Amino acid sequence: MQPLAFVQLVQTELEQVEDLLAAQADGYHQDLQAALRHLLQAGGKRLRPVVALLMGRLLTAPIDRLIILAAALEMLHTATLVHDDLIDGALLRRGIPTLNARWSPAATVLTGDFLFARAAKLATDTGSLHVMDLFTRTLAVIVDGEIRQLFEGGAYTTLEQYERRIYAKTASMFELATAAAASLAGYPPDHGPYETARRYGYHIGMAFQIIDDILDYVGDSRHVGKPVGNDLRNGLITLPALYYLEEHPDDPDLRFVLEEGNLFDEARLQALVERIRSSGAIARAAEQARAHVAQALAALEALPASPEREALAELARYVTERTF
Amino acid sequence: MQPLAFVQLVQTELEQVEDLLAAQADGYHQDLQAALRHLLQAGGKRLRPVVALLMGRLLTAPIDRLIILAAALEMLHTATLVHDDLIDGALLRRGIPTLNARWSPAATVLTGDFLFARAAKLATDTGSLHVMDLFTRTLAVIVDGEIRQLFEGGAYTTLEQYERRIYAKTASMFELATAAAASLAGYPPDHGPYETARRYGYHIGMAFQIIDDILDYVGDSRHVGKPVGNDLRNGLITLPALYYLEEHPDDPDLRFVLEEGNLFDEARLQALVERIRSSGAIARAAEQARAHVAQALAALEALPASPEREALAELARYVTERTF
Repeated sequence: MQPLAFVQLVQTELEQVEDLLAAQADGYHQDLQAALRHLLQAGGKRLRPVVALLMGRLLTAPIDRLIILAAALEMLHTATLVHDDLIDGALLRRGIPTLNARWSPAATVLTGDFLFARAAKLATDTGSLHVMDLFTRTLAVIVDGEIRQLFEGGAYTTLEQYERRIYAKTASMFELATAAAASLAGYPPDHGPYETARRYGYHIGMAFQIIDDILDYVGDSRHVGKPVGNDLRNGLITLPALYYLEEHPDDPDLRFVLEEGNLFDEARLQALVERIRSSGAIARAAEQARAHVAQALAALEALPASPEREALAELARYVTERTF
Repeated sequence: MQPLAFVQLVQTELEQVEDLLAAQADGYHQDLQAALRHLLQAGGKRLRPVVALLMGRLLTAPIDRLIILAAALEMLHTATLVHDDLIDGALLRRGIPTLNARWSPAATVLTGDFLFARAAKLATDTGSLHVMDLFTRTLAVIVDGEIRQLFEGGAYTTLEQYERRIYAKTASMFELATAAAASLAGYPPDHGPYETARRYGYHIGMAFQIIDDILDYVGDSRHVGKPVGNDLRNGLITLPALYYLEEHPDDPDLRFVLEEGNLFDEARLQALVERIRSSGAIARAAEQARAHVAQALAALEALPASPEREALAELARYVTERTF
């Protein structure tokens, strides 16, 4: 993968974010330090920090507080992944063993708790009660979404349910990143540049998750890091399946997924994936992602032209282009 | 049990705390609401809220923010218990089924996370960055202590290790309760009434846990809610065993606990418990608890005389008297 141009602009700040993240277990138990090192080395694109840094610079927020915000976001994201992987029993993430693949469930629960504590501490260190408030609300939304999926499964049949899920899972944190950056820049909530920034974050987050869900149908499994059709196999109806269902309400295999909450018969699963791929559902879902990107780009137009704004536009386009 | 006199003074505020706690899952998933109801109905003495309310009133903190602080403390305490019970595989707490006795591990992990999120939200709602800072630091200390116990076991042989453990497990949160109350009353950190309040919280927390550890040796199992000798059985060396070890460094059964990290042979265990009980170790541990209470009472002397101060003194004495 070639380096992403929009990251260049905040490369220096990102390195400070990495240093701050790496220091979060200093003075605590050595196994917490080892776990944090392992998790940070697993990498990831640090998209949430990049978005916060670019939006904050665009709106001229103080750089030192922005760096703390960016670290808080990545730490919160990491904490949720640790508990997610435990719950899903996932053994690999980004090609690297998950914590629960190496540690006991007890140690994994506690390490996640520790990361939550450090994320909350970093959010506090931004010195903004409004950022703290956004932060804790977002965490409740994320966890509520996971509980919902756990108890109700993912076999919904309405767009509203799907959108609620991907908002909780992904868009809420991108929205947090940009709204918090605007707040640190001194803009009051709910209108003006704050609202514009929030909307940009919301829309790229929604687009990002829709693309992720499309990749589960069309992606290269080596690239995506999990087998194609995984969502459907586990009874998770995402946008491609929802659109396909509209056109084919009686497809017996999709009905099976809706009723049973899974489809472990691999031949039937792959045939269903193939029918969805060759229908117009993928293109329609991609169109929906592009519509979110268009709204993110439209929001940017209201903000002052600058290299940061151009980088945020690039980032928005990257979100959809990474697929195809 | 007769009603505790020191609670009377803040009965009205405590009812508001209960209402606020009960409302924390409103608008979230119904199973989160059910879980919260179950946890709150399980009761508990609400000692942390009572301590915060009394200290806050003594120092004339604003009542509305005190109530929010008190709810934040109880929510944080509850969240840590949910993950603790999961990790320990405990099926009962206070005679009522734990969450993990009824729910899957996944649901229990997520419910704990949700409670952490709501605790952090409540702490934010106090409107004080210093309170948030104390709060997130304390959470990291608590989790670090649990990780330490998980990886190193509880078979330490020094008083310093024991004190570090009970500070993380119990005293840190009482210290948080009183320091945060003083902060809401407008006192700057680290000296004057703030430091006095913090010291009171620290010492009653230390005394409280020492008494808890003594009760594991001398308590009525119906009253304590777990079988006597449970700590030693699981390899946890607490103050009575530490003092006994000083006098009997070669006791073969205690050496077994230190080396193996448990003692499941019930006859040997009960004999060892009996030897510790009939040694001077229990009395010495109780003396240590009383010394902490004396320091808590001495701290109170520096604060203005009032019914609240008298109630806090009563509460400190209650901590040791509940045993014997």
